[in-house]
Amino acid sequence: MRFFSDNTATACPEILAAISEVNHGRAKAYGDDDWTRDIDGALSTYFGTEVRAFVVVSGTAANALSLATLIPPYGVVFAHEGAHIRNDECGATEFYSGGGRIVGVPGANGKLTVETLGGVLDELHVSVHSMQPAALSLTQATEVGTSYRPDEIAALTALARRHKLHVHMDGARFSNSVEFLGCDPADISWRAGVDVLSFGATKNGALAAEAVVFFNRALVRDFELRRKRAGHLMSKSRFVSAQLLAYVSNDVWRRNAARANGLARQIGAAAGSALLYPVEANEVFLKLGAERKKQLREAGFEFHPWGSEASGNTRFVVSWDQPESDVVALCKTLRSHSQPPGD
Amino acid sequence: MRFFSDNTATACPEILAAISEVNHGRAKAYGDDDWTRDIDGALSTYFGTEVRAFVVVSGTAANALSLATLIPPYGVVFAHEGAHIRNDECGATEFYSGGGRIVGVPGANGKLTVETLGGVLDELHVSVHSMQPAALSLTQATEVGTSYRPDEIAALTALARRHKLHVHMDGARFSNSVEFLGCDPADISWRAGVDVLSFGATKNGALAAEAVVFFNRALVRDFELRRKRAGHLMSKSRFVSAQLLAYVSNDVWRRNAARANGLARQIGAAAGSALLYPVEANEVFLKLGAERKKQLREAGFEFHPWGSEASGNTRFVVSWDQPESDVVALCKTLRSHSQPPGD
Amino acid sequence: MRFFSDNTATACPEILAAISEVNHGRAKAYGDDDWTRDIDGALSTYFGTEVRAFVVVSGTAANALSLATLIPPYGVVFAHEGAHIRNDECGATEFYSGGGRIVGVPGANGKLTVETLGGVLDELHVSVHSMQPAALSLTQATEVGTSYRPDEIAALTALARRHKLHVHMDGARFSNSVEFLGCDPADISWRAGVDVLSFGATKNGALAAEAVVFFNRALVRDFELRRKRAGHLMSKSRFVSAQLLAYVSNDVWRRNAARANGLARQIGAAAGSALLYPVEANEVFLKLGAERKKQLREAGFEFHPWGSEASGNTRFVVSWDQPESDVVALCKTLRSHSQPPGD
Amino acid sequence: MRFFSDNTATACPEILAAISEVNHGRAKAYGDDDWTRDIDGALSTYFGTEVRAFVVVSGTAANALSLATLIPPYGVVFAHEGAHIRNDECGATEFYSGGGRIVGVPGANGKLTVETLGGVLDELHVSVHSMQPAALSLTQATEVGTSYRPDEIAALTALARRHKLHVHMDGARFSNSVEFLGCDPADISWRAGVDVLSFGATKNGALAAEAVVFFNRALVRDFELRRKRAGHLMSKSRFVSAQLLAYVSNDVWRRNAARANGLARQIGAAAGSALLYPVEANEVFLKLGAERKKQLREAGFEFHPWGSEASGNTRFVVSWDQPESDVVALCKTLRSHSQPPGD
Repeated sequence: MRFFSDNTATACPEILAAISEVNHGRAKAYGDDDWTRDIDGALSTYFGTEVRAFVVVSGTAANALSLATLIPPYGVVFAHEGAHIRNDECGATEFYSGGGRIVGVPGANGKLTVETLGGVLDELHVSVHSMQPAALSLTQATEVGTSYRPDEIAALTALARRHKLHVHMDGARFSNSVEFLGCDPADISWRAGVDVLSFGATKNGALAAEAVVFFNRALVRDFELRRKRAGHLMSKSRFVSAQLLAYVSNDVWRRNAARANGLARQIGAAAGSALLYPVEANEVFLKLGAERKKQLREAGFEFHPWGSEASGNTRFVVSWDQPESDVVALCKTLRSHSQPPGD
Repeated sequence: MRFFSDNTATACPEILAAISEVNHGRAKAYGDDDWTRDIDGALSTYFGTEVRAFVVVSGTAANALSLATLIPPYGVVFAHEGAHIRNDECGATEFYSGGGRIVGVPGANGKLTVETLGGVLDELHVSVHSMQPAALSLTQATEVGTSYRPDEIAALTALARRHKLHVHMDGARFSNSVEFLGCDPADISWRAGVDVLSFGATKNGALAAEAVVFFNRALVRDFELRRKRAGHLMSKSRFVSAQLLAYVSNDVWRRNAARANGLARQIGAAAGSALLYPVEANEVFLKLGAERKKQLREAGFEFHPWGSEASGNTRFVVSWDQPESDVVALCKTLRSHSQPPGD
Repeated sequence: MRFFSDNTATACPEILAAISEVNHGRAKAYGDDDWTRDIDGALSTYFGTEVRAFVVVSGTAANALSLATLIPPYGVVFAHEGAHIRNDECGATEFYSGGGRIVGVPGANGKLTVETLGGVLDELHVSVHSMQPAALSLTQATEVGTSYRPDEIAALTALARRHKLHVHMDGARFSNSVEFLGCDPADISWRAGVDVLSFGATKNGALAAEAVVFFNRALVRDFELRRKRAGHLMSKSRFVSAQLLAYVSNDVWRRNAARANGLARQIGAAAGSALLYPVEANEVFLKLGAERKKQLREAGFEFHPWGSEASGNTRFVVSWDQPESDVVALCKTLRSHSQPPGD
Repeated sequence: MRFFSDNTATACPEILAAISEVNHGRAKAYGDDDWTRDIDGALSTYFGTEVRAFVVVSGTAANALSLATLIPPYGVVFAHEGAHIRNDECGATEFYSGGGRIVGVPGANGKLTVETLGGVLDELHVSVHSMQPAALSLTQATEVGTSYRPDEIAALTALARRHKLHVHMDGARFSNSVEFLGCDPADISWRAGVDVLSFGATKNGALAAEAVVFFNRALVRDFELRRKRAGHLMSKSRFVSAQLLAYVSNDVWRRNAARANGLARQIGAAAGSALLYPVEANEVFLKLGAERKKQLREAGFEFHPWGSEASGNTRFVVSWDQPESDVVALCKTLRSHSQPPGD
């Protein structure tokens, strides 16, 4: 019963079928095929505004390529101190930008606030001797499974704009947040002031498909060249584009997200006081302690510690295809833990 | 009837099936799955020696990441002046290496020779003021559809070693050469002195799958970190690894290559004196002139010019899945061209 | 009466004279002159061990070039959160290393300790997803004018070695520390475990001269090529080397440092409880508050705030050539401040 | 009798004196001093138009920093195949630009022409797969001691502009060309279409001083940050600025250039048919053959081969301070060589 990551999941049937469906005929290479040409339109519809969108095959590529487009080599990206771009991408943003920097900002529940970010920005001494503030990167859903509300994002992007920062969103779990919030994709992206979104599908049912969505379309040529140069322009692009087209069709994205979110909520409800953060996407973070971790592992549950093993904190990620039985079993075990013995 | 590129081809049934077959259960992410763990073994068997191999999804990534591992930022890569890494990757090698340089060396039939390369190497004035010779990159099959013989490669790698150059091979069409030469994969790789091979499957029947194969295993940790940092470590690696495992199983690679090579040979035979280079893989280069190009296009044949449109030179690439009727029609038209009118 | 920085100082007579003295004849360019060839010997004598040393003209170049030699592009440098390399070099280390990262570590009195650094190192989760710990950079004298004791350095470098980190020292004010500690240059460099030292002369009486001193000589060829490539190999190197030769001759370095340190101590003594850090080099940091800052500025003293203006904290740097009258006047004013009114 | 390079020369008295003259008082650091603030004005006067100018200490820094400002990381710089930026700076442009490329273009007498450059530009296939043409770099005086005429430069920059290329000039020996041509500095820079000039003083009498002169002032902030980040913003900038101010005062630049040019012309006249290129600056290139080279070296003349030793070609560079006796002796020897024996 594996709760390591939504990256352990399978691809969903519609997306696998889409790959088979486009597997006919000789399609022009490097994105000049019919399906890739449909991406702009499909995502413009999805977001309710005209966008330019580019497919890539990994979230790290989506994040680092878009940030490299948004900042100069001496630019600073502000992000939550727990952000994936800072901790889990082996310095991809530093590499792609030619030596940029990510400044981690603390914040409760995985979120930046106008207060914490504003405090950091106000303390900067910007001069020719310092790196130059250039972008804000928000993660939605956050690294601890919470979701920014539209007005929280809007307040942060307004602050960013006052400091002349471009705004990027790492949306590896964007769909989970949209589903949780019950809002429109636009509400937590361009309408809230986001310039460029890494729109993830891989974790939520694709094989390997992300779109970099430019709401601010001024920089797309630079992005296209950087993508090619990075080896992220796929020769047989149709197989990536087909995944994304299927993902935004027939509410596949929503159905997958809803299932994972719902199961995560069940786990959160079962966890009682062990719950570290509100469950607002498909991840559940628990303070379990050494003994309960051990018991869970012995009972066949697989999961990662959150922070050090010693902290006793753990992360459970629910995939779109998680067997319900896994969740039922986990909930049962967690509930038994929270009962006083002898009850 | 499209002869643009083998990148326009579909994925072959075995490889598509392999993707479906691995699409079950929750596999560990980022290459820690059963199929990716099998890659080293499968490719060690394929090459007949112990290798370390890493899957990526594009040839540009395979080439640039491996060259960045082989050279310092101030390093020079020597390659044929027509090499893909020099002309068609938007400077990926320069980017990944942190400012390296590719020096193009001329050579008939798309090949470097000990004479041409040796001449360039002998003329170098290496000092602290110059960039430093660091690697040789050979392309097999070459950019003009010819194949280096094992002894040609061995002579070039011996020369490289005398100049302390690492040897990389861009094997985007490696299988086509193995099939054409009727040799063992080892004969034109490690046995001939190649250190690292970009082993391509995408053009020959995969969706998006290449392996970087280290015969010289000293540098693999550096490669792994560069790959991750570039966003080329796939979270759901099983879907890439499955393609490669299928590719090297049951002679899929050979069957696909043999079909494409064979059809290309038919075109070459039909082309008569228009043929620019010997057909030793799945590409045919013809000197057609403006009038015959126009006629062919009007007859429904799609292909790229080779060099400028004005040169009249053209490239026809035959895919593994090329309809035989395309080739029959093309051969017929070419033969009619080579007949004197009124015959 | 200007206490902004020791970079505002003049060049000392011996060093200016040395420039004139070498200004004869046609000397070979790019470091192949007699004076530059003497640098290794002169600094080997100075440090009491065989070194390889390279002259450059700025501290930023010395630091960033040596760190780029010590770390891979995905490497992390650990340094005090107040370090010049982190805050005042516009990301030079990130640039020169090809996208490395500096992790700031807190510590009282501008110093790292085995506890603070060890805590950070112990919490790292190093994997292919993280940047890789690669170097420790210590600043001597520190950014707040304190000096690490030999045993403090030795303890930190031992910790670094246990974590396989190279050790760099930013010695922009190295001479001030040697003078303050009354120790041998070796005691706070190689004997204490430092691999590479940025040995500064500019702040202490040169026009523009720093040496990068390799105690660990394995990496010097890489450094030389990086220096050239950066435009930091001077064509007329004799004029830089002459400065350094004069600097380490006849105790020029010590005399200049002693004068600056001594005057700084006087200021520290006059400052009473306003003193923020012990005066262990040529800098004095004071907590003055808005009113006293204003009074000092009106009285003709020029200095920088330390941190924000609002903090009321200030930095006074004493140059080797600071007029004694400046210091007398400053001390008098500070003493008057610390007297209860009416005394 | 050393004719290796003008980099072997001394500094001229006015420039050395200027350094002493500014060596008083505490000047603000990092270019905020009175002398550096005068640079824009002094060079605006020199060039007869409003410029922004930045001092650096090496020609490589001047060239690579300005080119990095002019091109994107995937940009191509076109330059003569013999250009210093291509052959003698260890890839500085590739490094500073983040992986750009220099394409060498052939041309007689060290010069590009509208025909050779135009031919290369017309043959380009620019697409997302190729690096992007971005800048033209001209060298004045050229690497073989010839000088572009104003109309030659204007024709090349007009061609560049039609291809949307920025124009950089490497003016390491700019003054020598101005003196030779008897023109105004403007005539071969901004009036002829140059955007940014590396204006060299080091080879012509300074210790270490070059100015990057922006006629097109849009990009200067980017340049300033790149310069700082590279360690090329001098803390004690006054000592560099003073050199440049002295250089453009009282025709120091012209006097030095005139002397070197005049002596070079004498050598050229003495060389007879051995002369490889017209002498239009301070360099003389001779085809001497092995025997005459040997004789000259035995007679105490020091010089570099031009190309390989085997070619028999040689380069003699005359410094501003070359002893006249060196030149007299050289001329005499050359003349004796060109006499048939027994004459």
